[in-house]
This record gives sequence, structure tokens and C-alpha cells, in this order.
Amino acid sequence: MKNKKKWFTYALAGTVAVSSLSVMQFNTEAEAKQAKKEPTNVIMLVMDGSSNNAVSLARWYKGESLAMDEILTGGVTTYSAESAITDSAPAGTALATGHKSNSGYVGVLPSVIDMPGVEGNPDNAFTPVANVLEGAKQLGKATGIVSTSEIQHATPASFSSHVTSRSNYDDIGEQQVYQNMDVILGGGYDYLKSENRKDGENLVSVIEDKGYDLITTRDELLTSNSNKIYGSFAGSSLAYNLDRTKTNSNEPSLAEMTSKAIDTLNKDKDGFFLMIEGSKIDWAAHANDPIGMVTDILSFDDAVNEALKFAKKDKNTMVIAVTDHGNSGITIGNENTSSTYDKINISNYINPLKKATMTVEGALSQLKPDRSNLVEVAKLYGLDNLTAEETAALNATETKKLAGTFVNLLSKRADLGYTSGGHTGDDVFLYSYGPKRISGLVDNTDLAIEMANFMGIKLDKLTKDLYANAEAALNGKGMTTTIDLSDKENAVLVVKKGTTTFEIPENKDVIIKKTTDKSGKETTNEIQTNTISVYNESGFYISKETINMLK
Amino acid sequence: MKNKKKWFTYALAGTVAVSSLSVMQFNTEAEAKQAKKEPTNVIMLVMDGSSNNAVSLARWYKGESLAMDEILTGGVTTYSAESAITDSAPAGTALATGHKSNSGYVGVLPSVIDMPGVEGNPDNAFTPVANVLEGAKQLGKATGIVSTSEIQHATPASFSSHVTSRSNYDDIGEQQVYQNMDVILGGGYDYLKSENRKDGENLVSVIEDKGYDLITTRDELLTSNSNKIYGSFAGSSLAYNLDRTKTNSNEPSLAEMTSKAIDTLNKDKDGFFLMIEGSKIDWAAHANDPIGMVTDILSFDDAVNEALKFAKKDKNTMVIAVTDHGNSGITIGNENTSSTYDKINISNYINPLKKATMTVEGALSQLKPDRSNLVEVAKLYGLDNLTAEETAALNATETKKLAGTFVNLLSKRADLGYTSGGHTGDDVFLYSYGPKRISGLVDNTDLAIEMANFMGIKLDKLTKDLYANAEAALNGKGMTTTIDLSDKENAVLVVKKGTTTFEIPENKDVIIKKTTDKSGKETTNEIQTNTISVYNESGFYISKETINMLK
Repeated sequence: MKNKKKWFTYALAGTVAVSSLSVMQFNTEAEAKQAKKEPTNVIMLVMDGSSNNAVSLARWYKGESLAMDEILTGGVTTYSAESAITDSAPAGTALATGHKSNSGYVGVLPSVIDMPGVEGNPDNAFTPVANVLEGAKQLGKATGIVSTSEIQHATPASFSSHVTSRSNYDDIGEQQVYQNMDVILGGGYDYLKSENRKDGENLVSVIEDKGYDLITTRDELLTSNSNKIYGSFAGSSLAYNLDRTKTNSNEPSLAEMTSKAIDTLNKDKDGFFLMIEGSKIDWAAHANDPIGMVTDILSFDDAVNEALKFAKKDKNTMVIAVTDHGNSGITIGNENTSSTYDKINISNYINPLKKATMTVEGALSQLKPDRSNLVEVAKLYGLDNLTAEETAALNATETKKLAGTFVNLLSKRADLGYTSGGHTGDDVFLYSYGPKRISGLVDNTDLAIEMANFMGIKLDKLTKDLYANAEAALNGKGMTTTIDLSDKENAVLVVKKGTTTFEIPENKDVIIKKTTDKSGKETTNEIQTNTISVYNESGFYISKETINMLK
Repeated sequence: MKNKKKWFTYALAGTVAVSSLSVMQFNTEAEAKQAKKEPTNVIMLVMDGSSNNAVSLARWYKGESLAMDEILTGGVTTYSAESAITDSAPAGTALATGHKSNSGYVGVLPSVIDMPGVEGNPDNAFTPVANVLEGAKQLGKATGIVSTSEIQHATPASFSSHVTSRSNYDDIGEQQVYQNMDVILGGGYDYLKSENRKDGENLVSVIEDKGYDLITTRDELLTSNSNKIYGSFAGSSLAYNLDRTKTNSNEPSLAEMTSKAIDTLNKDKDGFFLMIEGSKIDWAAHANDPIGMVTDILSFDDAVNEALKFAKKDKNTMVIAVTDHGNSGITIGNENTSSTYDKINISNYINPLKKATMTVEGALSQLKPDRSNLVEVAKLYGLDNLTAEETAALNATETKKLAGTFVNLLSKRADLGYTSGGHTGDDVFLYSYGPKRISGLVDNTDLAIEMANFMGIKLDKLTKDLYANAEAALNGKGMTTTIDLSDKENAVLVVKKGTTTFEIPENKDVIIKKTTDKSGKETTNEIQTNTISVYNESGFYISKETINMLK
């Protein structure tokens, strides 16, 4: 057994390189030298919930090779700290921080650790861990996040916030705004408005106060020359790309957002870190909608192409494209092809899909309440020339379940199979490019570590620098701390030192310093710190720089 | 559109390297120098019909990393000339010859060419194309094939024969015997015996006459010191590895066959080519039997480990491990986990599988005709403590359909999903190692070309050298040709030149030369040629060396 290593010894979160063979090689000696050049940039592209087979199908649908095809370098394991099949929040957390976590947890350590080989201590549950974007920011690099979902969604949240529940859009949105990133592009405008927030914060004002060019349309994006852009193009998520030009033409494409983000971030002489998510591939996979999957994968691939164009010129940019997990178990071929599969041209699978001009979401958005245009709507989804059987199936389906019938009928026509309406436990393809491209079979946590290494960041040290437990750090050092929960949606750490009181609000990057002079006159100063402060059930976390400001 | 290439331009069979980025790189400069060292060896391992997800499941089942995990380098597209989902015969043909072909076609060109980007001319249908093993043999290298199926099965056949139907075991078996390979290990003894062959050939005698150590047991294999071994350990296929030690302990494991094959072939100072197939993973996938899939993948992985151990020492050996196509659409997770997937430990999926001590084939081989031991047999397959519902399902199933019920019940317990009982159109993981390891996304045909390049073989030229159309080459050059079909299972090319008659039997590597002197006395000589002669509906094919012997 000497030459065997336990599978889980290599799966340790954030510790060891997977294999001496495969990680961190240079394509050429010249590139190895090049890698020492500064600044370094990292572009991390996540196609949420895209099984390998969905990408294959997208290539056939396009009829051309993909940008990703050029940079396939390995595979990635994706399980979470508690589950063989991950949720997007711990998947994003693994990719961003190098730590496996639990379902719903964003940028914090897990409370349940029972998958083989995952190390950790449940006593550290909910402790924030720093991510690669925060590391880049501390190095003076420009940073950005882009998504087609609301920007507060699990994956972009994992690269920009620390919360114990992915559905806590209030805290995620606030932390993102106070992270002082340079480019934020996606959906989620609704969650910026005070009327929709339990904490009453008006993040729209904060964004404007912070000097962002706050934009809401494609045209504004394409013409903005600002160094700081907050683009919020939809109340919640953006439209699927196939539907976008028909129903939401004022929204930009993912490639357009990517291109603008790169151009904007690249103005920084220190380099940049950029996270891009093709968010809704996952949603289409949950719905078993091959149209949404395939067309949004192609839209994502266009974004990869933008990243690659930049990286090829720049020569010092790491590009990673990866899905965070499988979803739906989609296959080319199904039960209907069990004995005929080897004589079926690709057109059998693709032609039915090509007829669709909208995704199932887009098509059904056109349905009239009285369903009088059901045949036309079905045709939008490629279901033309309905058979009697198909018509009967549609008519027998209540409106809120029509999406299920639509996708079943189309997938039957196209001989596509699915095993689930949920995520699946696949190892997924890894696409990477650059002087330190990553290859071989790696764990999702390794990607964070390799990105950090490329930029010269030690994530463990960064976590200690950015997220120290305030009470442990301050109590008994001439200071007392209390957590003011009088407004429970806006917790405040109150630190008293002599006649000085520091108030540190959660989710923000500020200290409010109140001093009282001998005459009893109170002076208030607001001091900006180097990162956000985080509060959750495990404690209040502030940076070392913040701590030093209190001393 | 300038920077886009048509997908199918890169998918051309046997023409262009896929991407300047990814193919044929050296790990280090030292390895690049090393690669020029002679002799070169190639070990090609095929795990038939193993979807990527089945490999992931096998890793979890084992609880340790796999040998393959060390050498994951890319992905492979697998479609045939006519179908998005390939049959094993054209898949094997692509891997062996660099040419896509049609269902059932082994080592010959396709008649139906209608997948996008596949080039070729249907006028060349059925024409034999040379394979990498034949190329190695022409260079003086030792050669071998190993499988757990009958050795006449599609994949080993593709590396050693040329027939228009994979089910033509008579011709495949005869061609294999006359290919003069050094090591042949697998099943299929029945197809060597004259009583089972329409052509009446006694291949057992031929094998012995050719100086092989003809062996039939594991012990004989482990102790053989011969340089030429023909091991045939079962009438048809070998047992699944999990069943082997219980029901067929005189059969060797795939790793044992691999190790012996390497040791034997490595005696040749010119190097060697070796093809290994883990054949029955595919059969288990067709049956949706996760036990057969997972345990035979692990058995295959042990063979990969043997190949890697050798290659790491040798430093001039290319190792490739790959599946020829997906099968079954297996996923970790299914419809039952659609909304609960993110909270399910791996033990939920693995523990039910761990209870099985035999595959479904092995377990059901223990069933008594009266089914009185059905409960015990179910337990062999891990179905212990049957619920009332499970018992009812088993009792309601007729005996010949019990396998289906067994696998359904077990997969339900283990929350595994499937989309098909047939192959699927997946892009599959590529595993490779050595000084010219292959990486990136490549087509299955590229693997043949890269193996050939590594050994210094030009496959197109080799085909011209080995398989010229006899009638086109000989007629009108002072010779006449006829094909003697008086025994239609043993076609003979008859070439007349003056008073000399040459008889060239199909599937053999001989010329029978009959000369008549002035006195009318006939002299017969048998001359060995450098490869087999092939006859099919498109013509009679002989080598240039054979042609020169006739001139």
C-alpha cells in the first residue's frame, strides 16, 4: 500500500498541491520567466451548474469549437464539507477561499464536516475566511464581479461577502457595496433599495456616494468611461441570452460585461482580479431546459473568449473557466436510444433544439393568462407541428407546470436524457490558461489556492489579517466590547477605551470614533478601514488594521 | 468571425493537431531530450464504456485516489463517422487507426460519412487502414493485446484486424493469430476451435505451430517465461473482477495480465506497443449495474497503475488511458435527490454498493432454477434486509429479467441515476503520461496519430504499404488475378504469372507459390509475408512486400 495515497489526503482543503505531475507548470521556459513580470491578473469564470455533457451539446449546437475547447487542462472535484453533491454557496466558497463549507454558507467555515478527508473544526463554524478577490484588493489590484443573476447570488457573493446564509441578500448586497470593488455588473437592483431591505439601508445612495458610475442599461455600460462602475441591469436576474434581445434588449450580454470589466480593471497599474459568472445555466439545468443550458453556455463561452483575447495579449493573466458542479445529469442519448444510439446523426439531437427561439422561461413569459396563444408559445420553444399526443399533454398541464411539460416534450424530440432536477456529483472539466495554468485532477479548493499563489497571496495569513474575532482581540487590553443589537438588522460592535467609543457597524468598512473632551463635547469621526466588518452567530470580525486603529 | 474555426475543421480524422496550445508538449526540457531516446514504448489502455461519472463513483467507492487521477490531462470527443454516439468498433478503429468509421466496422473505412466535419469518400468503404500496433510491428517492436472480453471483441479487434463486421469472430480471430503479435491475453478460446468456426480453421494448432506458449490459467500465466504468449482464459469473456476470485479463480486479473504483458514485451530491444482493454465496464453500464462498473473500473485502474509503474522507470513510454465512449448516463444523484442533494453524505451512495460481494451477473449465476435461493442471491448483490416492496418486485419479475430488477433496486437504494441502457455522446476524460503526453481537448482519432508520431510511424504511408488493392496493383502487369470463392469462408487470391501460380489466402500472412517446371512437376513453397491479407466486399488487400514477392 506504500504507493497509494488516501484519496482524502489529497482532497484536503487548502493545504497540499494535488500532484507533482500536474499543478503549476509552465508551458515553456519563456513563460516561466514571464510569470515573474508584474502585474499579474486573474480572470475566474464560473459557468454555474454546467455538466460536461451540456458543454458538449453546446458545441454541437454551435457547430464550431468553443473558446473553452482551446484551454481544457484537467478536471475538478466539487463535493462540499457535508455532501457528495455541493450547493453553489459552498462551491463558490471553495473556489474563492480554498475552504470547503456547508450548504448556504458563503465565505465562512462549515459547521458540519463529515465528508471523507475534509479537515476542519466545527468549533470554527461561521468564521469568515478571506477570498482571492479580497487578497487582490489588499495588494492594490483592481477587483470586480460580474454575473447574469442578481449580483447577490451565491457565486458572486462567495467572492465578495461572508454570510451564513446565501439567501441573506441584505448583508451580501451591503458587504459588496462596502468592499470597494471597482466593477460590479449584474442584476439585483431591487436588493439595493431601502424599501426592499429589512435593514433600511439605501445602497443606491451609498453606491453613488462612493463615486461609482451607477448604470442600469447596456448603452450606459458600453459608453461608460468611469474607473468605478456599478451596473445593475435588472431587479433580480438578467434574461437568458437567447431571450435577452427579444425581451430585455437594454441588458448587456455576459461577453459585453466581461469586455467592459476587463477594460476598466486593466486601467489599474497593479493588475486586477475579476470573477465572471454565467449564472443561469444552472437554473436551466434545474428546469431540465436544454435551450437555456446550451445557449447560456455559448454566451458564457463568448465571455471566455473575451478573457482569452485579453490574456493572450497580456501574457501575464491567469484565466480559469470551470463549472462549480454538475446539474441534471444531461446526456446526448436517452432511454429511447438505448438500442439505436450508434446510428443516429447529431442532427437528430440538434435540429429540434435549433427550432427554439426562446428558452422555456422566455417562451412562457409570452403566454397569455387565458392560454389562448399556447400553440404559438410552444412554437417559440421549438415545439412546432404539435402531434395530437403533444397537444393533449400541453392542454392537460396546469399553467404553473407548463415549463415541465415543455422541456419534457422538447427533450423527447431531441433524445436527451436527464437523471435529476438537482445538482449531481460529477467531476467537471477544468479550463485554464496562462503562464501558470492549472492542470490535472484538482479539487475546487485548489483553484483558490493556485489563483492566490499566482498573485502572491497567502490566504491563511490574509484571513488572520482581515477577519480577527474582535472580542478575543480587544477584551482585556484596556478595552471593552459589546455588540449593540438594538437594531438587530444593523448590529454594531461598540468598543470603549477610556473616554473614546468606537462604533463598528457590520457589513461596512468604517469605524465611527466618538471622543469626549474635558468639556464634555463629543467629536465624531468616520474612519475607513481596509475591509468590511462581519457579524454573525459566531462573533464579530474585524481586520488587524481596524484593531490597530483602536489601540 | 476571423478567430473562429469551424468545430469540424478541428475534428478532421487524422489531419491536424487540435491546438497549438495543448498537444505534444514536454513536461520539461529534460523530458524533451529524453523523448529522442530509443526504444519508445506505447501502452494504450481502454476502459470500454466508462462515463466520467462512473470513474468518480469508483474513486469514492475505493476511498482513495486512482492511478488515473495522477495523469488526467484533457478530454476526448468520441463520435463516429455516422453517429453522435459511437459504437465500440468505430471507436476502437478511431483509436487504433486515426480514422472514424461506422458501427460494426473494424479497421476499415466507413461507407456512411455524414457527421459534420468527418472527411472521407464512401467509395473507399471497407478499405483496410493500418493501425498503430501494425506500425509498431513493422518497426520491429514487440506487440500485444489484452482484454477481459473474448479477445476477438471490438476494441482488441480494432488494434489487430480488419473486418467489416465486428461479429465476424472467425476472421478477427484468424487475423489476430496470423498478425504474429507477441502477447495475446484474454478470453475467446471457443472461437479458436475448428468445431466452432465456419471456416473450419483450427487456430489452436496454428497458435502452437507458431511457437506461442498457449496457456489457459492464471498460474500458467504467472509462471510463463516465454517470449510469445497466447493466453486464453475463458471460452468467451473473463469474469468481472469482483466475481473472479469466487467463480473463476483460475483467471488472471487485468493487472496481472498487464504486468506479464509488459514484462514479456519489454524483452524486445526495439520497444513495444501494448493495448489493454477493461472490456466489461461497458457491459455493466449497458446493464446499469453500478457494481460491475465500479469494481471493473478499479480493476482497470490497477492495470493503469502497472503501466505507470513501468513508464515511470522506463522514462520513454507513452501511457494513454481513456474510455472509448460514455455509457448509461450514470450520475451520483437522481430524481430522488432533486431537492435534497446538497445535504447527502457520500456514504449514502457508497454504503449500499459496498454490501454487494458480486456483480449482478455473478450473483444471478448463483440462482437456482427454482429460485429458492433468491433472497440469498439478492444479498450477494447487496440487497439485504429486503423490504416488502422490494421482495414483491423481485417475486414479480420473471427470471430472465431479474438483472433489471436487481440493478433498479440497488441503484434506488444508492440514489444513482441513469439516462439510458446504451452508449451516450459524452466528451470523456483523457489520461496520459510520458515524455509526449497528450493534453487538451482532442478527438479520438488524434490519439492514434499521436501514438504513431511518438513511435515515428506515418499511418497513411503504412496503410499504403500494408493494404494495397491487389487487383489494382497486379492486373495488367503480366499477371492475372482471380478470387477463388469455392470455399467462401476461405477466400483465396489467385495470381497467375506465366507458369507460376500464387495463392494468397485471406486472413493469413502467407503466399503459397506453385511453380511447374518443364517436365510438368509442380513445386509448392509457402512464403511468409509482413502482414495479413484481407478480403472483403470491397476487394482483396495485400502488402507492398507481398506484391514485390510476386513480381
